[in-house]
Amino acid sequence: MNSKRNPASKKPADSTKASRRRFLTTGAAAAALGAVRTATGQTSPPEAKSLTDQVAYGDRSHYVTSLRVPVDGRPSPDEFGMTFHVLAPLQDLVGIITPSSLHFIGTHRGSIVPDIDPQQHRLMIHGMVDRPLEFSMDDLKRFPSVSRVHFIECLGNHSKPEDKTVQETHGLTSCSEWTGVLLSVLLKECGVQNRASWVVSEGSEEVKGAGSIRLAKAMDDCIVAYGQNGEPIRPQQGFPLRLVVPGFEGIYNTKWLRRIKVVDRYYMTYNDYGHISKDEEVAALTFQWGPKSVITFPSGGQKLPAPGIYQLTGLAWSGGGAVRRVEVSTNGGHTWKDAEIRGAVHPKAHTRFGMDWKWDGGECVLQSRCTDELGQVQPSRAQLAAFFKVPPDHYKTHGVQGSDNMIQPWRVAGDGSVHNAI
Amino acid sequence: MNSKRNPASKKPADSTKASRRRFLTTGAAAAALGAVRTATGQTSPPEAKSLTDQVAYGDRSHYVTSLRVPVDGRPSPDEFGMTFHVLAPLQDLVGIITPSSLHFIGTHRGSIVPDIDPQQHRLMIHGMVDRPLEFSMDDLKRFPSVSRVHFIECLGNHSKPEDKTVQETHGLTSCSEWTGVLLSVLLKECGVQNRASWVVSEGSEEVKGAGSIRLAKAMDDCIVAYGQNGEPIRPQQGFPLRLVVPGFEGIYNTKWLRRIKVVDRYYMTYNDYGHISKDEEVAALTFQWGPKSVITFPSGGQKLPAPGIYQLTGLAWSGGGAVRRVEVSTNGGHTWKDAEIRGAVHPKAHTRFGMDWKWDGGECVLQSRCTDELGQVQPSRAQLAAFFKVPPDHYKTHGVQGSDNMIQPWRVAGDGSVHNAI
Repeated sequence: MNSKRNPASKKPADSTKASRRRFLTTGAAAAALGAVRTATGQTSPPEAKSLTDQVAYGDRSHYVTSLRVPVDGRPSPDEFGMTFHVLAPLQDLVGIITPSSLHFIGTHRGSIVPDIDPQQHRLMIHGMVDRPLEFSMDDLKRFPSVSRVHFIECLGNHSKPEDKTVQETHGLTSCSEWTGVLLSVLLKECGVQNRASWVVSEGSEEVKGAGSIRLAKAMDDCIVAYGQNGEPIRPQQGFPLRLVVPGFEGIYNTKWLRRIKVVDRYYMTYNDYGHISKDEEVAALTFQWGPKSVITFPSGGQKLPAPGIYQLTGLAWSGGGAVRRVEVSTNGGHTWKDAEIRGAVHPKAHTRFGMDWKWDGGECVLQSRCTDELGQVQPSRAQLAAFFKVPPDHYKTHGVQGSDNMIQPWRVAGDGSVHNAI
Repeated sequence: MNSKRNPASKKPADSTKASRRRFLTTGAAAAALGAVRTATGQTSPPEAKSLTDQVAYGDRSHYVTSLRVPVDGRPSPDEFGMTFHVLAPLQDLVGIITPSSLHFIGTHRGSIVPDIDPQQHRLMIHGMVDRPLEFSMDDLKRFPSVSRVHFIECLGNHSKPEDKTVQETHGLTSCSEWTGVLLSVLLKECGVQNRASWVVSEGSEEVKGAGSIRLAKAMDDCIVAYGQNGEPIRPQQGFPLRLVVPGFEGIYNTKWLRRIKVVDRYYMTYNDYGHISKDEEVAALTFQWGPKSVITFPSGGQKLPAPGIYQLTGLAWSGGGAVRRVEVSTNGGHTWKDAEIRGAVHPKAHTRFGMDWKWDGGECVLQSRCTDELGQVQPSRAQLAAFFKVPPDHYKTHGVQGSDNMIQPWRVAGDGSVHNAI
């Protein structure tokens, strides 16, 4: 339903309530609004599915056409390059759960999805432990489980001037209820030795994607996850097993997890291209995500049909913990107003925010700013440039050091069209 | 992955940790465990889907075969009777979110799923209001949204002696993150008149399913919902619009919502068969669900391969608010022990619980008992029989007055097989 975020009233109004009421009582107004198409295109026509199959496992409506799109339109990693990233349609999502079928994908050279038989799959934990152990999927389910809502976001989630939609600027983040065993429980089962200080996790895909995290993080809140949104993890997210490293960049959330080695140093792996830096400040930024947020309506590529009252909404999150506050500016950052948190607030999870917003028909710039439970405040591009001592416009043409959590500005033009304003 | 809830150790052990370790270090043990099949059967083989389509909208693994099943195996409501109910595979779910494709279905004579174009759909609110209004889907999205996790459970969710699995005994309950507008906001927009005391909601299906709720409930926490688990509500759950009446029985959660009438009395509707009683105590029980819980592993139809340590797990919920405590008895109710709450606790939502449990190989009866934030405690069958002054065995052969929230016993036989013990 591409038009769902573009309601409109026919005329500007003096107050939110009066404006809504005038709109609602002018019966024909709604019918006059055409559907606004997103950049996501169309699904295939619905397949004929027997009643028995529909009863067994349901589908979404054929009127719902929200889709993921590959970064730069590349349909396959094998044909076009080293990495393969697929963007979640954030502009179409509601609440905080990303439907598993629309979760972003970030993967590397080789097959997109290893086809793993869970009965055959094993997780080995070895290295600096007293008892190296191998766990089947059944073994893992012998340990106490946790179910926690966390976002996963790829380091590649940069907003670039050429990106038009929020799917393009921010679509490499998603949020799920993950179920599994705390990594700390498994490590204690194996007996971590005193000299150990890092943990390396390895996946099953062709390139054996791997990541190094500090033992302190491994013993904190990492989950060896087998469940995603109530069912087994989807293949594109690591079926049957994924290491979820809450708040850390996507690359550390090893998919198709098959091996964990306890070690005494950072291990270089295939996945370290671009993730390592001699600058300690930059290096630190490649682990944990800072506070971040983005307005998903109105956002780039959408068009407001007319002045009036809208529900501005978006997502906020932080690798540092729970979101405590989201502020919104509708005048390019001159003034800010607290948005409402609209739903559950989980640590290191997408958090939905929203507010009434009246568009008077003039050009304006919309921005959101997240503050997390540590008191960290999402920076503007200018603030980050000042911090890293680069020119103010540096990030329009250069990559960001570490992760990009800068404030995203959307410019609403006089004709109601919305544009990326970085 | 039907075997996932049936890990086993080869021998009984003296302590949880020692037992687990012994199991884990006897490498061949896991491989020797055959998959335990549920009653749900098999999916069709995975369809050939182009890479482009897989990227656009992902699927679950073809190794995952969990399915819904119709009550009594009836594949269609049109061929076999008045109502049509499809059971969620609770034995296969993890966490608290029910995957939307596996959400239970309860519907009535006529088409299972009206095919509604959301651009054409309207919600009318009229009756005892100052301003009757008609809302398009776009109109509704002009109002502040909420996103809340709630269960919906059908009154038909009875455990009968002939039911073998937890899918059959309890599969008419499911839990989702619902997004929409509070009904109270829309009612205030319309201006409820002083004499009004009830609200009737009507759906779009052939029989115009409808329900009456008190105005106090309508003004409390009901949601006119358009989102389910991050995406538009699924057609089988009411696309494009459903009234979510948290904690109330399923019948009041009107699917394909098209009309709300504010009135001054309870309205009889098609859906009132079996839902109305002259006994006020019974009638009251057909509105709000009491505290309820069920163990999903081990549960009927499953088989424990050998004595040893298992993770006992299940779901608890209450129409009265948040779950505060879940106790488990492994000896037929003689003693009880607190289970751990394993995940988020939302009011009127499924809540995951679990505990370490050592099966010594003897016959035993497992039960769980929920206490909610009001202090309400889930009753045993004997307690309910005493309350309603019927013989203790009454409920083995007779329907329950109102909703069935009685404690579910599972008998584990000496061979590890698990049976419904009501």
